[in-house]
Amino acid sequence: MELTRRNFKDSLSTVYSAIEEADFLAIDGEFSGISDGPNVSALTNGLDTPEERYTKLKKHSMDFLLFQFGLCTFKYDQAKSKYITKPFNFYIFPKPFNRTSPDIKFICQSSSIDFLASQGFDFNKVFCNGIPYLNQDEEAQLREQMEERRNQHANGVGTPSFISPSSKGPAHVPEEHKDFINKVIEKVEALFTNAEKTLDLEPCTGFQRKLIYQTLNWKFPKGLHVETVETEKKERFIQISRVDDEERKRREQQKVEREQEELSDAVGFSRVIHAISKSNKLVVGHNMLLDVMHTIHQFYCPLPEDLQDFKEVTMCVFPRLLDTKLMASTQPFKELISNTSLAELEKQLKEGPFKSPLVETAEGFVSYDTAQEQLHEAGYDAYITGLCFVSMANYLGSFLTPPKPYISARSKLIEPFFNKLFLMRIIDIPYLNITGPDLQPKRDHVLYVTFPKEWKTSDIYQLFSAFGNIQVSWIDDTSAFVSLSQTDQVQIAMNTSRYAESYRIQTYAEYIQGKHQDKDKVVQTPKTWGEDSWKKSHYTPSTTSAGFGYSRGLRKRSISPVPGDEGTGDSLITDGWSNYSYPDSTGSKKMKTDASSDQANTDAVESKTSEGWLKTADSSDTAGLSPVPDEDEATEDTDQARDVDGTVTWQQAPSTMHGRKGQKNKKKQTEAAESTTSLFEVPEVW
Amino acid sequence: MELTRRNFKDSLSTVYSAIEEADFLAIDGEFSGISDGPNVSALTNGLDTPEERYTKLKKHSMDFLLFQFGLCTFKYDQAKSKYITKPFNFYIFPKPFNRTSPDIKFICQSSSIDFLASQGFDFNKVFCNGIPYLNQDEEAQLREQMEERRNQHANGVGTPSFISPSSKGPAHVPEEHKDFINKVIEKVEALFTNAEKTLDLEPCTGFQRKLIYQTLNWKFPKGLHVETVETEKKERFIQISRVDDEERKRREQQKVEREQEELSDAVGFSRVIHAISKSNKLVVGHNMLLDVMHTIHQFYCPLPEDLQDFKEVTMCVFPRLLDTKLMASTQPFKELISNTSLAELEKQLKEGPFKSPLVETAEGFVSYDTAQEQLHEAGYDAYITGLCFVSMANYLGSFLTPPKPYISARSKLIEPFFNKLFLMRIIDIPYLNITGPDLQPKRDHVLYVTFPKEWKTSDIYQLFSAFGNIQVSWIDDTSAFVSLSQTDQVQIAMNTSRYAESYRIQTYAEYIQGKHQDKDKVVQTPKTWGEDSWKKSHYTPSTTSAGFGYSRGLRKRSISPVPGDEGTGDSLITDGWSNYSYPDSTGSKKMKTDASSDQANTDAVESKTSEGWLKTADSSDTAGLSPVPDEDEATEDTDQARDVDGTVTWQQAPSTMHGRKGQKNKKKQTEAAESTTSLFEVPEVW
Repeated sequence: MELTRRNFKDSLSTVYSAIEEADFLAIDGEFSGISDGPNVSALTNGLDTPEERYTKLKKHSMDFLLFQFGLCTFKYDQAKSKYITKPFNFYIFPKPFNRTSPDIKFICQSSSIDFLASQGFDFNKVFCNGIPYLNQDEEAQLREQMEERRNQHANGVGTPSFISPSSKGPAHVPEEHKDFINKVIEKVEALFTNAEKTLDLEPCTGFQRKLIYQTLNWKFPKGLHVETVETEKKERFIQISRVDDEERKRREQQKVEREQEELSDAVGFSRVIHAISKSNKLVVGHNMLLDVMHTIHQFYCPLPEDLQDFKEVTMCVFPRLLDTKLMASTQPFKELISNTSLAELEKQLKEGPFKSPLVETAEGFVSYDTAQEQLHEAGYDAYITGLCFVSMANYLGSFLTPPKPYISARSKLIEPFFNKLFLMRIIDIPYLNITGPDLQPKRDHVLYVTFPKEWKTSDIYQLFSAFGNIQVSWIDDTSAFVSLSQTDQVQIAMNTSRYAESYRIQTYAEYIQGKHQDKDKVVQTPKTWGEDSWKKSHYTPSTTSAGFGYSRGLRKRSISPVPGDEGTGDSLITDGWSNYSYPDSTGSKKMKTDASSDQANTDAVESKTSEGWLKTADSSDTAGLSPVPDEDEATEDTDQARDVDGTVTWQQAPSTMHGRKGQKNKKKQTEAAESTTSLFEVPEVW
Repeated sequence: MELTRRNFKDSLSTVYSAIEEADFLAIDGEFSGISDGPNVSALTNGLDTPEERYTKLKKHSMDFLLFQFGLCTFKYDQAKSKYITKPFNFYIFPKPFNRTSPDIKFICQSSSIDFLASQGFDFNKVFCNGIPYLNQDEEAQLREQMEERRNQHANGVGTPSFISPSSKGPAHVPEEHKDFINKVIEKVEALFTNAEKTLDLEPCTGFQRKLIYQTLNWKFPKGLHVETVETEKKERFIQISRVDDEERKRREQQKVEREQEELSDAVGFSRVIHAISKSNKLVVGHNMLLDVMHTIHQFYCPLPEDLQDFKEVTMCVFPRLLDTKLMASTQPFKELISNTSLAELEKQLKEGPFKSPLVETAEGFVSYDTAQEQLHEAGYDAYITGLCFVSMANYLGSFLTPPKPYISARSKLIEPFFNKLFLMRIIDIPYLNITGPDLQPKRDHVLYVTFPKEWKTSDIYQLFSAFGNIQVSWIDDTSAFVSLSQTDQVQIAMNTSRYAESYRIQTYAEYIQGKHQDKDKVVQTPKTWGEDSWKKSHYTPSTTSAGFGYSRGLRKRSISPVPGDEGTGDSLITDGWSNYSYPDSTGSKKMKTDASSDQANTDAVESKTSEGWLKTADSSDTAGLSPVPDEDEATEDTDQARDVDGTVTWQQAPSTMHGRKGQKNKKKQTEAAESTTSLFEVPEVW
């Protein structure tokens, strides 16, 4: 179902009930761009910490507009043994609704816009008919303004009119407008004597309108209702009505009601997010970190500075999340799925050992045909994300004794994947853990190297030529991480670097320590993270809408495992298979907080042989670990479509807001040569 | 004629010849926004200096995209005694053309986008089929890259391939890709034995493509041409061709030619600006400062820091400009035209004493109908701007003895209007003088007041309540200019303020001096401005295209007055009327540089009775001078449409990039009340 400003209000109840009845929801967003930095390396480094990644995404991605939101609800029909889906595709645009409403500015990235254009995206629908929205603060402010104005009326200020020191007397009418104003007065005087009740003046300038208000307010303090009306062509004219006191009150009342409705219209799409939030339903997305960040930023509140605060806000807006890219990158799927981009994943999950899920589009909804790919329409992407989730969840059922063909969204089997959002292209931290501390992998084979800005990747390779395979992750023009293949080489590198003048080497530990010292200078109270500290949200977004800010109790409930309809069977056979075991059988419910268990997790990730479920691998990471010098080239994959992955190829592009940095470009250019002979290729962004 | 990426190349010769044959050109641009500041007061203050205004526009307007460019050429047909017009409406979009091309990010302002949407603007045409462009630097860089690559080939690097330390040996193929690569090798070996000359591989990931390049380069160093080809669906696959040396060379040559053409395509719309520039034709626009700035910024070079440098670049790109808004605001038109917004001007110029110009759309062009307004389509706006110019120019002919019904674009009569661009809402400086020093009006009745940020307009009025009518121009939260009605009050105000603690008053002269001192600290060599210093351009934009950078001689010629076809008559009767005289009979050709003559001009502007041609008045200015306290309210006019004028009403909107400053809003809100009773009104932007 396509939703624009035209049909939004009438369709809202359909959306609400679809959410209410659903077993789970799938979402997807389309944005006007991905990174406003000079290049994507500014956005992703293979050795980012979760805090660094969050800060970068917040800084470089949030000024883009989420202008299409896909929601697909999935409700399991026991009788039919299939899911009934209701796909919604919302077009979103922050149309200013009055002159005091925020006039949002957003950035568009040409490559992203061009990519969407090539996919048949309808920009006219967004810009002409997009559904407006307000975040919590804006809604509160507007409500306050309205009430203030109403109080003014109640206090006898009467019909709003221009109030100024000079308006106590007759308005000062400049010479050139006197004729005009006198004619208006004549017409109004006629209004009192003739049969007409209403007089429409010709459209005129704002200044002239102001003069009219001033003059009429002074000359006819009672018996008139003066209003500015806007034509469809946005021309404004003044409408003057002859009214008695009762009529005047009735009109005021009408106005209040109109304002209430207009406020509600202005909150617009945010109401859908409120409903999702209130529903406590599992929300599934593919590579959904940016979707979640944008959704919160645009419809709830500006993103907090701190990652921990972001996690708490996220739990408030989306109490249960599941990222299908993370799921597909994790055991037991990781071994079976070579490409985790949404389109490829969907294809692979149709083939053995997986089964295409049985789904049916609800009556009255146009069904998507996966054979006829409509990728990058948010509604379609949400739909196939849901399909992927169902396929993978059901596959887990095959490990049960006896095997179960259908696994509910409430099953304990999928709990390990809750609230872990895929982290793009971080070598050793597969996900952002929304409901607990993040993994802290050992990085003692990693060096932090600083050097003159003239250095190229080849200079770094030369410097470390004695050490065999290394991996270079550029940080900026003058620094990079160098991962050695063996940890015991670190000391050798440190020793030889002592005599160096042009470059400097630090261990990763030293680098992090230095960073923390810098951060502490900017005032940071270290946080203690208790067993269940996620419950004590200390980040308090302004909660003015009934839709948000439900009680902590509710939130807590939403995170607690809900026993599946048929889940009783599930929990009994958790150990029914060999290769698939949870390091923490309580799933995400309880946080491990002691260092040793964190370490255990980390080891599982790092170990090349471990089959722990935390072990994930992105195809691009695999590439990155191969002995290929230029990371830019190596990490290119076909994830270009939905995932930011693809933007890595664009890392070479030296673009800035307007213009570019020739130098850096040139050096990469010369060295990396081209892996294709075509000069004119579109950067793989999105 | 509508021009998009689809028909641009084929239509370019039509555009070129229309420009070549024209008597004058009219232009107009549509942008994705106007101001990225929190509000428009950041952009316009009634007492800005030209330098300040330029700096503000540059800072707050240039990150928007000029995405529609209107050009209408006017050629006078002697036989028919009418102008033949050729209107062009170009859709512009910086589609990235390869992975090293700049990925432009631009800002959209919701109110502007919404306004254009309401006017039926076709965003899909812009984003899907917009014509690309490059500025001078980008073009030069791309050319350089191409040549570098070509040299690499010439030096025997051969078919571009991935070059890395490890590629000297066989490529390292990760285990999981070995099967894939082996199959490719088999296929290629088959290619050498069978009849086929070309082999298309299946689409695969970038990493796989890289492996293929590496492997084939090592295994089959000769006899193969390997190329990545992109399908319409943006899928990339590898095409392998069996070639002998000759065929290989032929292909290389083809590639060079293709690259040349692609470069030319990438320069795209900038070629039209080059052509306009080279033509030396008079370029007419309405309120065209932003159009000129955007055009230069987007298609020529990033705008220079300094206003003087901007003037010189402008003369290089547009050797002769005429602003119809400035013309309409100047004697003898000022007295006859009450509203100078484009739409209103066009209407008024159809009625007496003016005459609708006789025009005819050239064969093969769709004609615009002014009755059926298509305002804010750039091509239409350019068209009616041209009509306005013709009407006004011809009206000047009525003052001649004998009166002439047709005045050429080359007539001396219009020279006084050359290269003076309308300055929006500056009280006492009507225009930016591109070919000379700007007016420096006396501002000795103006005070610079600083105060606590809690102050509202009413506090300032109260402070100056003893002085009668004053005018307040807010600068920021804590400062404003206050114009007194009488200069001799300045000293009184200064005296009383001596004991003030909460506020501080400086004379305008002191304020300017302070500013200059600040500026000098930032290193500024004072410029001497000689009699004809505009000829000695010291701002040298990189001139890499043949289209630009023509010799100084040419530029000089373009500014010198060109005798009109029938202009001999004109110059004889320059003084043929009473109310319309040039203070400088040589028009803009020679600059007045001595202070006294500047002062004379300024006096003409300031004097309320002077009928000098420099005396201009914008309706909003008049309003601003009336004794109305809140400038915001006072300056509203119907210029909302094309002109930035309208944005003043939006000054109250406290929007920032995302969110808003409640406080400031609230104070304005309460105090200014509303001049309309409608809550939901769209800000008058554009």
